[in-house]
Amino acid sequence: MFGRIDHVGVAVEDLDEAVALYSERFAMPVQHRETVEEQGVEAVLLGVGESHVELLRPLGPETAVSRFLERNGPGLHHVAYGTDDIDSALEQVRAAGLRLIDERPRTGIRNSRVAFVHPKSTGGVLTELVEAAH
Amino acid sequence: MFGRIDHVGVAVEDLDEAVALYSERFAMPVQHRETVEEQGVEAVLLGVGESHVELLRPLGPETAVSRFLERNGPGLHHVAYGTDDIDSALEQVRAAGLRLIDERPRTGIRNSRVAFVHPKSTGGVLTELVEAAH
Repeated sequence: MFGRIDHVGVAVEDLDEAVALYSERFAMPVQHRETVEEQGVEAVLLGVGESHVELLRPLGPETAVSRFLERNGPGLHHVAYGTDDIDSALEQVRAAGLRLIDERPRTGIRNSRVAFVHPKSTGGVLTELVEAAH
Repeated sequence: MFGRIDHVGVAVEDLDEAVALYSERFAMPVQHRETVEEQGVEAVLLGVGESHVELLRPLGPETAVSRFLERNGPGLHHVAYGTDDIDSALEQVRAAGLRLIDERPRTGIRNSRVAFVHPKSTGGVLTELVEAAH
């Protein structure tokens, strides 16, 4: 169902400072930077093995990541699992009775297809499914 | 410095329920179960690609994971990066001025060597370095 941890998502207040931490102190290469308007974030991907760290800065106060920061402060925001077939994976998750945030995959960073599962049904962990662009 | 995401650590209240979620609904194989007295947890590792999900149940009320659960409820607790040489990685992290929880590596799950970096110096993310047992 899942082939890897695609990324861990980290909510940050200062994106440049966070990029410096991961790229300079943890020696992870910056691989991508993108504003994802639909999700209300500017995101930076840094590489580590077959996975990424995804740093997320909210674009404005009415965004999900901004609300997360107000409630929790900066820190771990979500985990994303990679799949080759998100339609099938999402159907399995739905059939298992888990509560979905996205009933259908939508476009995520780097033209991936993504869908979020609600943390209420996954032990408090906001969980994302990701199918990379082909 | 880091070769992979070794695992994401998830704090749980009901370990069997969490194992069922990840093993049955997310089809991740259970690979290991261990009580780590020193860290005050019972832990289960489930495989996903080159990484793991590490489910953590506190052994008692005076443990770090129990305090985390009281403060935050169940959810993402930490992220761990794998390294082939934890002594060198820890020295680099120290030299970069990051605040360490563990000045020296100690024994973690499955006889790994581990060290934690304080979330105050890593943007709120409790970060673990792991060198697997050889």
